[in-house]
Amino acid sequence: MRKLPISDLSELSLELRKFIVETLATHPGHLASSLGTVELCVALHYVFNTPDDKIIFDVGHQSYVHKILTGRRDQFPTIRTFGGISGFPKMDESPYDAFGTGHSSTSISAALGMATASKLQGDTTRQHIAVIGDGALTGGEAFEALNNAGVSKANILVVLNDNGISIDKAVGGLSRYLVKITASPRYNKFKECMWKRTGGDTRKSKSRHLLSKTLFALKSSILESANFFESLGLRYFGPVDGHNVEELVYVLSQLKNINGPKLLHIITTKGKGMPQAERNPVTYHAPGRYDAETGLQLSKESDNQPPKYQDVFGHTIVELAESNPKIVGITPAMPTGCSLNFMMKAMPDRAFDVGIAEQHAVTFAAGLAAQGMVPFCNIYSSFMQRAFDQVVHDVALQKLHVVMCLDRAGLVGDDGPTHHGAFDIAYLRPIPNLTICAPMDEHELRDMMYTAQLDTMGPVVIRYPRGLAVHPDWKNTMQEIPVGKGRTLLEGERVALLTIGHVGNEAVKAAEMLRQQGLNVGHYDMRFVKPLDIDLLNHISQRYNAVVSVEDGCVEGGFGSAILEFFSSCPPDLCSVKKVVRLGIPDFFVKHGSVPQLMSLCGYDAQSIVNTVKRIWNE
Amino acid sequence: MRKLPISDLSELSLELRKFIVETLATHPGHLASSLGTVELCVALHYVFNTPDDKIIFDVGHQSYVHKILTGRRDQFPTIRTFGGISGFPKMDESPYDAFGTGHSSTSISAALGMATASKLQGDTTRQHIAVIGDGALTGGEAFEALNNAGVSKANILVVLNDNGISIDKAVGGLSRYLVKITASPRYNKFKECMWKRTGGDTRKSKSRHLLSKTLFALKSSILESANFFESLGLRYFGPVDGHNVEELVYVLSQLKNINGPKLLHIITTKGKGMPQAERNPVTYHAPGRYDAETGLQLSKESDNQPPKYQDVFGHTIVELAESNPKIVGITPAMPTGCSLNFMMKAMPDRAFDVGIAEQHAVTFAAGLAAQGMVPFCNIYSSFMQRAFDQVVHDVALQKLHVVMCLDRAGLVGDDGPTHHGAFDIAYLRPIPNLTICAPMDEHELRDMMYTAQLDTMGPVVIRYPRGLAVHPDWKNTMQEIPVGKGRTLLEGERVALLTIGHVGNEAVKAAEMLRQQGLNVGHYDMRFVKPLDIDLLNHISQRYNAVVSVEDGCVEGGFGSAILEFFSSCPPDLCSVKKVVRLGIPDFFVKHGSVPQLMSLCGYDAQSIVNTVKRIWNE
Repeated sequence: MRKLPISDLSELSLELRKFIVETLATHPGHLASSLGTVELCVALHYVFNTPDDKIIFDVGHQSYVHKILTGRRDQFPTIRTFGGISGFPKMDESPYDAFGTGHSSTSISAALGMATASKLQGDTTRQHIAVIGDGALTGGEAFEALNNAGVSKANILVVLNDNGISIDKAVGGLSRYLVKITASPRYNKFKECMWKRTGGDTRKSKSRHLLSKTLFALKSSILESANFFESLGLRYFGPVDGHNVEELVYVLSQLKNINGPKLLHIITTKGKGMPQAERNPVTYHAPGRYDAETGLQLSKESDNQPPKYQDVFGHTIVELAESNPKIVGITPAMPTGCSLNFMMKAMPDRAFDVGIAEQHAVTFAAGLAAQGMVPFCNIYSSFMQRAFDQVVHDVALQKLHVVMCLDRAGLVGDDGPTHHGAFDIAYLRPIPNLTICAPMDEHELRDMMYTAQLDTMGPVVIRYPRGLAVHPDWKNTMQEIPVGKGRTLLEGERVALLTIGHVGNEAVKAAEMLRQQGLNVGHYDMRFVKPLDIDLLNHISQRYNAVVSVEDGCVEGGFGSAILEFFSSCPPDLCSVKKVVRLGIPDFFVKHGSVPQLMSLCGYDAQSIVNTVKRIWNE
Repeated sequence: MRKLPISDLSELSLELRKFIVETLATHPGHLASSLGTVELCVALHYVFNTPDDKIIFDVGHQSYVHKILTGRRDQFPTIRTFGGISGFPKMDESPYDAFGTGHSSTSISAALGMATASKLQGDTTRQHIAVIGDGALTGGEAFEALNNAGVSKANILVVLNDNGISIDKAVGGLSRYLVKITASPRYNKFKECMWKRTGGDTRKSKSRHLLSKTLFALKSSILESANFFESLGLRYFGPVDGHNVEELVYVLSQLKNINGPKLLHIITTKGKGMPQAERNPVTYHAPGRYDAETGLQLSKESDNQPPKYQDVFGHTIVELAESNPKIVGITPAMPTGCSLNFMMKAMPDRAFDVGIAEQHAVTFAAGLAAQGMVPFCNIYSSFMQRAFDQVVHDVALQKLHVVMCLDRAGLVGDDGPTHHGAFDIAYLRPIPNLTICAPMDEHELRDMMYTAQLDTMGPVVIRYPRGLAVHPDWKNTMQEIPVGKGRTLLEGERVALLTIGHVGNEAVKAAEMLRQQGLNVGHYDMRFVKPLDIDLLNHISQRYNAVVSVEDGCVEGGFGSAILEFFSSCPPDLCSVKKVVRLGIPDFFVKHGSVPQLMSLCGYDAQSIVNTVKRIWNE
């Protein structure tokens, strides 16, 4: 591609855009953000000497064009499928993927690390580029990195891809500030005037070179307010039209020769080139299947399906908040994903999107709780890893009444290892004062949410998976669940299945399959990881020979380990259980694929449970 | 105090300063930061209607004067001792402690939460004040909170206590920027001129009122560069002399009447009023015992003492880096605490203080490792909770060769629950690809550091406690330790003690006490939590009836649970071990006190081990 004349790049971009729209129509993926960065990816690879120069795509779902341009065009239709290429950059997938990204706001830190390494290794020519969206820039880690980069002499370029949106609309002071820069009439007038004077729309104008140079000089001298980045010690350039590939090439070529930490601000349109996606970038962030011609989404819903857990959460928090004025809702930038947008619409004063800012979200919730409110803080399980310290230090230690709803707990499927909510039970269980529970269906979710908001409660964690719940008729009358009490689904003999959360439905299937083979296992929906139901466990300990724990989470230190810890302290003469087998996510990072494929791979789907029980039945 | 005339506040401040210097001389605590905020604390409580108005002290070791002023003067000499008052604000200690803080950068989030609660509750007069140092402001969470506060209409005041230092010297772009504001000749000239014109040094001048008002108007209009905060949407006021209590009172009284999010920038001197502390605020951050008259530190070192683990780390990384050019050192703002300052002095190009920025520190290390360097990233165990996601997502998932040294793992003593490194084994053990080890003495620490930097290794965690190691002669010749191999200290009968890390020395004492009573236990220093030494465990499983695991960390999900998980998968006919007892930190937050007191409380000091063994010996 680097051999193409610069004038061909516009057409290349058009082709790439078409290829993406056509491929993702039948192979679902992150559409709108990829469409927004076509010209940027083309220009970056045109100007820089990748893979020796390092490009790090923050969050990484904006990297599809990068993947196509770096030898993965043929594999592109396999994206996000089991055995296919990943939807995110992955170091072991290609040498062009300089750093794996899936969570937000890491790219500047990683690029600064690489630039520092190059410097220590005496390499003065290698370039290190972090491409980061305006949404991701609000994540605290990005600021920590900018603050550190600003005093380094590292050769790092931050490309700020400003489209005013992350997955949902970007929020916060910084976002407003970027709009102010971009909308500055003084700057825009100057730029338009210069652009026309140097050749208008005709291509290949040499004076464009001059223009780019002049635009560099603009910076904060014209844009008085543009020195947020300058004040941190980075040179600021821009804003530049991110869909004008020639201008991008000129500008990036210039920046290549400027040493030290610098930031280029480009303006793009999420969903660019596909009218539906431009108009509705939230829906078209990851639209599922759609018609490549018309762009219309293909409905996959059928009438008699159960709702998503997400929607049950969204409707239920509104229902609860209507009768309990203390309840507020908080999401760090995932209102559509977790369905808090229902509450944001119904009671905008009481629902907060705080931006990509998990740490702040949890402490903000703690502050609300300290003043007598009952915040429901909804964070994806794998993103809650960002706020682990805040859960310990601000919520649990102070016993504050914060309800932490962990969406996308367990295997998430096609987003893969960065997004699986594998660890939450294991990392939260050791924290004192927490109540941790997981619903087996949406009725339990509603009951747990109802229970969690009662005045008698302290900090509560409710974890539930991505996707469909169980009952088409989801709207039960909510009732209190006694804290730390499980329920008996099936009394049996010899082997007891102890499950936590939605994966219990696999055990229901397994128990039925076993019954048909004459093996009558018991099945207990424990509901609470912490505190455990000691009475129920004592009952089980005297009735069965073996216990199989099943969880949609890591086995090391997880729910099964809690069960094991119980049985280790059980007096031997009162306990007939001689064996505890723990099923769950094994000690490796699980790749992407469909949830059933992955569950089978990990060995805790219904069939795997059946196999386990049969193996130990006669022991 | 609010009844005092304003002119008496200077003298009150002097008295308070004297009281602190005298008390802490014999009751060690955080001296320098407390001396720096005397006038601020006085002014805040004079102006605001605490405890109804909420003051949140970030990090919290700057809150001593606040404690003295709010009914804890008599208890002040008990500070940081077992049963005494805490060295940090604590909600259950006093209604004036609006929010507990110990870790950095949480105060703005909490204050915003409280302000939002007040608004929802219809309270329009309550004030919410976050007092935060310039060092803490670099922590990502503080930025997340500013970004969110800037678009809120919440009634929040951020007081930026700018002393150019956190515990060590503050670093980063923001810090340089603050210096630039403060040093702005244009501003200072104007201010000096105004100050003189309105009454110079004479007190009680009415025109001071006017001055304060005028200074407000200054803001970014005079200080073009002062709009870092304004660009995020907060009104910026200052800078103001933080040791002029009258000026502070005037300014704060004005700000009380300005609604919405705002920031007051005050300049203070850490250690103010005590010449030694002003000259050397790093040493006098927490100087231990000193002479109240002269200010000279009282030495507590004796010749034949073993060194601190910290110093062994500091010397050893320099030694290793001298022969391995790939090694670099990273600390998030704790160079003196963890002794990376040795390396920063010996090889300044290869040792990095990245500021209070644990998340960035870990991803920065990952970036360095991705380019072939071997970063040693030293983070206190409880602060590593901040970077949990980065350990999972950036280091472990990508198998990058980062050595994470967890200083202050286990109970830390007088700093209490916010600082105990209780959870690290439990939260790191579930992460695939990690090697996790802990040295029983400093020779093992050196061997583990040596082993960790070898090219064959991936991500490694080495945890070790605060304080003294074991051998006065600490400098052994380093050698490789086989990964996942423990060592046998004592073969015995019936009961085996399995220990991890420095706490193994308690087991050595216990074993000797038991031997004297005729009970010959075995003792194994497992060295690795992950991977476990399966061969050694198989040997143990066939030789003993019971196992007692001992760790300086939480029992839920910790090292003992790993041992339990091993025995649960052991074939019963090959295993004589029928009981596993896990000793460690129980499922509650451990208060402050001396380490021996707390270890006894938690039940895993030598005597507790003896008691446990005797209880199960005949089972």
